[in-house]
Parts: sequence; C-alpha cells; structure tokens
Amino acid sequence: MPITLYELAAADPKLVFSPYCWRIRFALAHKDLPAKRIAWRFTETNRIAFSNQGKVPVLVDGRTVVHDSWAIAHYLETTYPNRPALLPNGDANARFINAWADTILHGALTPLIMADIHDLLHVKDQAYFRSTREARFGRKLEDFRPEQAMHREALHRTLTPLRWTLRSQEWIGGEHPDYTDYIVAGALQWARCTSRAVVLEQDDPVFAWFTRVLALFDGLGANAVTV
Amino acid sequence: MPITLYELAAADPKLVFSPYCWRIRFALAHKDLPAKRIAWRFTETNRIAFSNQGKVPVLVDGRTVVHDSWAIAHYLETTYPNRPALLPNGDANARFINAWADTILHGALTPLIMADIHDLLHVKDQAYFRSTREARFGRKLEDFRPEQAMHREALHRTLTPLRWTLRSQEWIGGEHPDYTDYIVAGALQWARCTSRAVVLEQDDPVFAWFTRVLALFDGLGANAVTV
Repeated sequence: MPITLYELAAADPKLVFSPYCWRIRFALAHKDLPAKRIAWRFTETNRIAFSNQGKVPVLVDGRTVVHDSWAIAHYLETTYPNRPALLPNGDANARFINAWADTILHGALTPLIMADIHDLLHVKDQAYFRSTREARFGRKLEDFRPEQAMHREALHRTLTPLRWTLRSQEWIGGEHPDYTDYIVAGALQWARCTSRAVVLEQDDPVFAWFTRVLALFDGLGANAVTV
Repeated sequence: MPITLYELAAADPKLVFSPYCWRIRFALAHKDLPAKRIAWRFTETNRIAFSNQGKVPVLVDGRTVVHDSWAIAHYLETTYPNRPALLPNGDANARFINAWADTILHGALTPLIMADIHDLLHVKDQAYFRSTREARFGRKLEDFRPEQAMHREALHRTLTPLRWTLRSQEWIGGEHPDYTDYIVAGALQWARCTSRAVVLEQDDPVFAWFTRVLALFDGLGANAVTV
C-alpha cells in the first residue's frame, strides 16, 4: 500500500502551497518514495480527524499515521533507513534551522503573501483564513499590500545568514541537498506558489540556490502549479 | 611549545570580550588544550602583522598561524582529532548558525552594548572604535542608550529560533555542547563582559542554557572578568 499524504490546497486542488507540506513533498522525493496525494482544505478538519489533530501535512503509511512535518521527516528517516538520508548531519543543528524557518523566515514572508493567499483559497476557507490571520496580526490582510517594499527589504535582511552560508557551500546540507534545504525551500515555494510578489532578486545567491532546489527530482518544485 | 592566542582586551587586560575570541576560548577548553593568552587592543595591528591581517583571534601553534574564528576552530579539529570533536555533526548546518550569529545575533546585541564597550576600552582604542562604529551606524554611540527597551525586545524576538530549539534539546549541539554552542554563547558573553545592560530575562530558556555554558570547563565563562 503506498504512502498517502494530505496536503493543503487552494481552490484549485492542484495548487498545493503549505510550506510544511512542501518540506514533505521534497522529503518523499529525496527518499524516492511514491505517495498518493490528497488535497485538503483548512476547514476540512473532519477529514483528518483520524490523526487526532487538525493540521496538515498528515502522512499515512499502512497503519501508521504521522502529523507535523518534523515528525514526518523523522518517521521517514527511521522507517526507510536504506534510502538517502534526510538528515545526514544529524538533528541538532537542523532543529535550529527548522525553528528559524518556522518563526523568523515565515514571519518575514507572511506580510508579503497573506492577502494573495486569501484570494486563491477555496471560498469555504476564506472566512476562516481571514478571521484567524486578522486576529493574529491585529489588522486587515489588505493593509499589508502598500508595504511590500518595506517587507521585501526586511526579507532580504532576514535571509542574510543563508546568503553567507551559500558563499561557502552549494546547499544548506553542504555538498548535497538534504532536509535542511527542503525546510527553507518550502518557505520560498509557499511564496512562489501563492503570490506574484517578487520576493527574491535574481542576482541574489539565495535565488540561485532556490532555483537549484526547484530543479531537483525532475523539477518537482519548478513544475508545481502556481497562482 | 604551547598554543598562543591573541585576544581583544579592554583597558583592563584581563577583560577579554570579543565574541570571536570567546568562541575560541571555549573551543580550546573543549579540546582540553592549554594556551598562553595575550591581551591585544584594536589599534595594535603591528603586533599581529605576522598573521598578515589586522584582527583577532589569532592563534599560533608552533610554526602555524591561523586567524578567523571559523578557520581556527577547523584548524583545531583537524590538528587535534583525538580530542572531543568541536563539530561532531559536521560543518554544513553549523555554518548557518555561525552566519546567523555573525550577522543577525551580533546585530541585535550591538545597539545594547556599543556605548558601554567604548567606555571600557583602553584610551588608545577609543577614538578608533568611536569613529569606525559611528561611521557604520551613521549616528553617535550614545544615541542608542535611550532605546534600550526597544532593542531588548528586538533581541528577544531574534532569539526565538534558539528558544524553540532548546525546548527539545539541552544544547545547540544536541545532547552535548559543541562549537555551535560556543558560537552563540560567545555573543552573549560579549554582552555580559562589557555591559551591565540586562539582555536576557532570567525566566528565558536561553538564559538557562547560557548559564549552563558559562559553567562548563570549571566555570571558564562564569569566572571571566566583566565590566
């Protein structure tokens, strides 16, 4: 029985955009594990109630159900140890990069793309998305739109450690891409799939690296459906 | 012949404060390598001219001269492989943490401590320090003083990925402290040695972790001379 992956989708079920789901898409490809993918929307919590929580990615492998991208990556690493390692350099420092992406990097991208995400969601998700996000930020989604230049500049600064790292190595994983690359690329793919906002300048070494990640696995990222 | 380490010092030659020098102090202790330490001041570039550049730390080991903290850490790892590894999880992800500390973390600490550093420098260093830093920031060192609360809040946000990481592991290195801990602790020790400004709240998990680092090696960090 193949692996099943529940992924967050827009109105278009092929437009899959969650940064956490992209981490696992890349991770499954890295392990060369085929998966049946199921489009899921924010408000369909009943459809993943079997996972005892309400967020995707949810991975089902036989009788095993795993949620949370970090837990899924570790499940894949432990269950399929004879395939390429996702974290060949261990967990410890990767956890810092994971936490940096979850908080600082996602936080820097959020104002650039929130309003665009709203607009491409399935209509049944839009009210939920707007109310939860506007409560979190204390302002309307559309209030971010006139501030794009400022937020792009902040994103550029946020990416400084990555830019410095890429001076000395081709991948965040070093000589080869690994799960730490997918963590960070998942964030940029989230923006790429949902928004026409230019978040990276083409002469940015981060752009060159992201382009390399998009080309992996026969263009898994590059060929994704975008807005 | 023992190793010699040139370290940046204040007017008090025992007050050693450079974050890069602290990384190497901890790294030498981790490798259990004794070192003769030589206090050096910003303007004494002639005293380290033999290293063909003008910054510390500079490490001299027999006929070998190494500068730059990252290069020194790697020199120690390669030259003394039978002692505890500084980077047991490899270079790749550690390089990201190093870049994050050099840019984002140091950047967040700088406005909190710049004016205090100036005041404790040797008088011959003060004009150099003021002019280079004021040119870099485009303002007077003292202009940062009334903004402490704002900069402390920004530092707290900057430390979020570290705080999240420490929910799941005791050290940045995982189960044991390693060079990635010393990279980040070096930054906080820079502040602790030079400034009376409270940069961490005592209930912050980062404070607890930093206290653990300070206690290592018979309190190498804890017993350091501070302002």
